[in-house]
Amino acid sequence: MSEKIAFLGLGNLGTPIAERLIKAGHELTVWNRTTSKADPLVKLGAKVVENAIDAIEDGGIVISVLADDAAVEEIFSMELVEKMGKGGIHISMSTISPETSRQLSQIHDWYEETYVAAPIFARPEAVVAGVGNIAISGKTAAKDVAKPILQGFVKGIYDFGEDPGAANVVKLAGNFMIAASLEMMGEAFTMAEKNGISRQSIFEMLTQTIFAAPIFQNYGKLVASNVYEPVAFRLPLGLKDINLTLQAAANVNVPMPMADLVRNRFISALAKGRQEMDWAALAKGPSDDAGL
Amino acid sequence: MSEKIAFLGLGNLGTPIAERLIKAGHELTVWNRTTSKADPLVKLGAKVVENAIDAIEDGGIVISVLADDAAVEEIFSMELVEKMGKGGIHISMSTISPETSRQLSQIHDWYEETYVAAPIFARPEAVVAGVGNIAISGKTAAKDVAKPILQGFVKGIYDFGEDPGAANVVKLAGNFMIAASLEMMGEAFTMAEKNGISRQSIFEMLTQTIFAAPIFQNYGKLVASNVYEPVAFRLPLGLKDINLTLQAAANVNVPMPMADLVRNRFISALAKGRQEMDWAALAKGPSDDAGL
Repeated sequence: MSEKIAFLGLGNLGTPIAERLIKAGHELTVWNRTTSKADPLVKLGAKVVENAIDAIEDGGIVISVLADDAAVEEIFSMELVEKMGKGGIHISMSTISPETSRQLSQIHDWYEETYVAAPIFARPEAVVAGVGNIAISGKTAAKDVAKPILQGFVKGIYDFGEDPGAANVVKLAGNFMIAASLEMMGEAFTMAEKNGISRQSIFEMLTQTIFAAPIFQNYGKLVASNVYEPVAFRLPLGLKDINLTLQAAANVNVPMPMADLVRNRFISALAKGRQEMDWAALAKGPSDDAGL
Repeated sequence: MSEKIAFLGLGNLGTPIAERLIKAGHELTVWNRTTSKADPLVKLGAKVVENAIDAIEDGGIVISVLADDAAVEEIFSMELVEKMGKGGIHISMSTISPETSRQLSQIHDWYEETYVAAPIFARPEAVVAGVGNIAISGKTAAKDVAKPILQGFVKGIYDFGEDPGAANVVKLAGNFMIAASLEMMGEAFTMAEKNGISRQSIFEMLTQTIFAAPIFQNYGKLVASNVYEPVAFRLPLGLKDINLTLQAAANVNVPMPMADLVRNRFISALAKGRQEMDWAALAKGPSDDAGL
């Protein structure tokens, strides 16, 4: 079914998602802080607005793909939330803290609107290819509206119940596991390299056998070559996510020493001026430490 | 081609390997410290000897699957190595240090024999199913003899060149990555659990999507349930392997902070009396720390 959708946030991930939605036949009104980023979408038929609030229709559907908690809190002002109105559904795809999701959900509730958390596991090229996966949580009736829309551009949708923060917890846990896998490969490949084995050859064996998963195959290529391009997800965003993970863990008294280690790697990468690199450049840490 | 093979070591992994070799038509003379373990193999047609040296034939093939460096050094006494004689090939499948492999290789060289390192990535059930993988290294002529024998019971053989220690480095790096994956899942699933999400549901999403690899799917099941049975590889052997990894890294000045973290988890597991559990019980650490 074709839906009218207000789409907020045209970053690296938002843009290909919006494009897929337009191509699936939905009617999009898009907003982005830098309006010019909407140009390619306007050519595909999207309407563009200067202010986020002008995208909102009474009782309509809003999809947001924003950079962080602060952006979500700023864009979803009281004014905007009020304008959404009774029956409105906010599908929030940003990687933010479970707490922000839960608080925003309560505000939406006040206006008889529903908040659905639907963060996506996908790099931009995975959105284009339709192979991403979404963790979803929130009230069932709203999820029933959201799922058919989201299904159009991902491989799978995994439902984590009614708690609006649950899907964010899963997304943070997953991103922690990706970051930890980068450090893991960085250490293993460096240890092999200094023992006279090519990084490429150990990468090939392990990612064709016991570690034959997308994370190891795709990121492993970067770690094997020690070249971290193209940049799909900037390193400071990786630090943001691991900080959110550690906060979500500390809130329920869960120590995560491996996440602490990874966090320090991100901080060190920033100290070395790597803020413009892909977050996979975390894996340069072990290689620096070994004098390579 | 059917070969006469002296097979030394009938542990959890050695036994199914020997069985596959017999079923593939090779003529095995087996030895194990506890001779009775050979009984099922004798029924299949193997010859059994009381002393390892009695299994050795002049210029023949020897396959060893032993517990650790000390066992390899003890069994491959000067007397036994001398008896192997010119043209003899030792296919060493144990997970041992690269240094032990290199030293033993030099001793074999002295007698015009060849040492081939061929550690296997497989739990016993993977050997039975023929889905394990072998890293191999050593002199090419001997590898050409070893490969067709090994090919009969694994999915893939990956060649890491002539350095007899290289395959051991790869095996240690891989085992480190498995242990680190256990800790990673332990932390992520515990963080999810205390945030109200079932360990099973986050396990299912992540291992069906971005972490869809055997290590995460098979070990993840144990970490999700927090029950570490059946025991295929005892926890103290995991500590042995991580110690070897750290030593092989330190020998070439590579710090591995994630491996240090994992090592401490093994030590703590022993302190808690978990020596009879599978090494995957490492992943109980994060859950203990979180008061579960």
